[in-house]
Amino acid sequence: MNVEGRRYRTIWLKEGDPAVVRIINQLALPHRFEIIDLRSVEDVRRAVKDMYLRGAGLIGAAAAFGMYLAVLEAGSAAGDPAGFEAALRRAAALLKDTRPTASNLAWAADRMLALILRTPGGAGEKRERARLAAQEIADGDAECCRRIGLHGAELIKVIAEKKRGEPVNILTHCNAGWLAFVDYGSALSPVYAAFDQGIKVHVWVDETRPRNQGASLTAWELARHGVSHDLIADNAGGHLMQHGMVDLVITGADRVTRRGDAANKIGTYLKALAAKENGVPFYTALPSSTFDFTMDDGLGEIPIEERDSAELRFISGKTAEGRIETVQICPDESPARNWGFDVTPARYITGLISERGICDASEEGIRNLYPEGNPVPLRLGGSMPEESFPADFG
Amino acid sequence: MNVEGRRYRTIWLKEGDPAVVRIINQLALPHRFEIIDLRSVEDVRRAVKDMYLRGAGLIGAAAAFGMYLAVLEAGSAAGDPAGFEAALRRAAALLKDTRPTASNLAWAADRMLALILRTPGGAGEKRERARLAAQEIADGDAECCRRIGLHGAELIKVIAEKKRGEPVNILTHCNAGWLAFVDYGSALSPVYAAFDQGIKVHVWVDETRPRNQGASLTAWELARHGVSHDLIADNAGGHLMQHGMVDLVITGADRVTRRGDAANKIGTYLKALAAKENGVPFYTALPSSTFDFTMDDGLGEIPIEERDSAELRFISGKTAEGRIETVQICPDESPARNWGFDVTPARYITGLISERGICDASEEGIRNLYPEGNPVPLRLGGSMPEESFPADFG
Repeated sequence: MNVEGRRYRTIWLKEGDPAVVRIINQLALPHRFEIIDLRSVEDVRRAVKDMYLRGAGLIGAAAAFGMYLAVLEAGSAAGDPAGFEAALRRAAALLKDTRPTASNLAWAADRMLALILRTPGGAGEKRERARLAAQEIADGDAECCRRIGLHGAELIKVIAEKKRGEPVNILTHCNAGWLAFVDYGSALSPVYAAFDQGIKVHVWVDETRPRNQGASLTAWELARHGVSHDLIADNAGGHLMQHGMVDLVITGADRVTRRGDAANKIGTYLKALAAKENGVPFYTALPSSTFDFTMDDGLGEIPIEERDSAELRFISGKTAEGRIETVQICPDESPARNWGFDVTPARYITGLISERGICDASEEGIRNLYPEGNPVPLRLGGSMPEESFPADFG
Repeated sequence: MNVEGRRYRTIWLKEGDPAVVRIINQLALPHRFEIIDLRSVEDVRRAVKDMYLRGAGLIGAAAAFGMYLAVLEAGSAAGDPAGFEAALRRAAALLKDTRPTASNLAWAADRMLALILRTPGGAGEKRERARLAAQEIADGDAECCRRIGLHGAELIKVIAEKKRGEPVNILTHCNAGWLAFVDYGSALSPVYAAFDQGIKVHVWVDETRPRNQGASLTAWELARHGVSHDLIADNAGGHLMQHGMVDLVITGADRVTRRGDAANKIGTYLKALAAKENGVPFYTALPSSTFDFTMDDGLGEIPIEERDSAELRFISGKTAEGRIETVQICPDESPARNWGFDVTPARYITGLISERGICDASEEGIRNLYPEGNPVPLRLGGSMPEESFPADFG
């Protein structure tokens, strides 16, 4: 997507130095646009853990590039296959441990691990194979998101036709835009696609406490792309829906079970309840890699990450003088609890939008879109050559 | 209530100088405890408008003391009854205009206006009558809240008995504690009463964006009183209820219609939806003065205040060095919208707790508790002598 006229992805290999993975530092947004370099598995681990980068698709791609960096680090151990394998397994475990709720992270780390371990030949072959595979995961993520946009834009178009020139009001929670993926985004990809098709859209941007991804990232993305939007408190969505001011809710997801229960940023469930209650369609947009078909009951089975209470007790922002400052918003002695995600049961979700199309959020609906069953393969017609993956990866 | 061992109310006349109304500056909390003096109707108007003080009961009491200050200001016009009346009416209109959603504000201003205009005699008599009446409204508010606490504590006690020594987890939104009233509070009064009776309670404190009354005021109050609590994001309550971690929700209200629809801080509706969905009892605590029996359909009839978007775009807090600093949390170019309240339809409310007792949130339930009908009188057995009010005020 565009940043001041220049096209960016959220993760890429440095031109001229493919031992360096570059990312946009999301902690500096919206006040400063900054690129940072990751040179080791530890760099990637820290970037994911401390949320220099975040978002379902992007942390998957980061895990993939992290595994590629792990191969570079373990390179000298190539003469010691057991040591090499142990190092790779350690790296995968390290990466998967950073964000327990995210499905894509484990998906990408495991996929890379299996692929690298199966690749015959020496350090050079493995390195090249890992680099290509990581890039394919990244390219696949971007292509999935592009397609999610095309499918989702159809929903927006139908509403726009009914509204006869009035803008379509779309509410979103957290950031499931291009910053959360390699490009395009999941929840915001339909918005961008509709906007680019000339459909009038307006986005209600949930602030998304405690980390304010809506206020800092979604608002920033939309502003860059010129999409009309208003920041609102997370508390406001119910009121807006009661008064007919929301036509459609689209959020992303961090993990979706085989029956369609969706883990997403804390607070998503409350918006889904209000949407159901007020007859507002509520869609979850996700690439196939976000499905976890090993799980059925989202509430009972998806692990919910509890994060540092400091994320709630302190807020960072820009002072009038332009400095970035962190302030405490509660009494010194008041503790806080900070769960990162909640689970929206499938019955509150109108439909799922994946790169394959739109389906009901139900076991049957999902099976219709994924007839090949579990585990979900990432089958991209075209953009990811079939032969680049071992048969049992789909 | 207590602040570092000393007993305070939130509004009082300065000892030795009854032309000065003193309040606790709530904008300075939780980082600094500060008393400020109000000396004119304009001071009161600004304090209410800019939220140096806020909360259903307290702004009612402030309006009452504001009308008393209006009498002092208009004192010299006592020889000119028409001018005096015009000045008083202007003051009432000015005060009522500050916060359109709040029922108590209009209730207290109108009550004072009628009372003052009916009082025979000269400036001295009117002044004295206004002072007594404002004090009675304040005392009445405190006494109502004390009784709300006793009624509500019974609900908590029943849950505590079932939980056999485990703490009762109560979720509250915004601040409906003693800072929102003259003393005790509405939603928090049952918590304090139960705590004082030795019942184990734990409060989930909704941060309450955008003004953070939960983080700054409710957490501060609870900490002062020694009540166990955790600050949570407004987004978290649904997740907690899904996992059985909330036994009871109690919130306050800014206006409740004759069928029990309740306007309260934006976001309350979302918690009510989650409570209903998860079988968690949801109670609204209010003194009788918060009822507006002229209204039926809360969603259609209660005016919802839209406030300055700066409240959402900027956050104030304490830096590591102890300075109070304001920071911007969104891109410069992103606009925001900021509605202060939402309406929870009666069907999501398990019951209403007023100083008279607990009733269903329905026209019938309310009529059972208020058989004397519309408009609701504030009939306090004892604390407010009956003869101090003209017959048609109850």
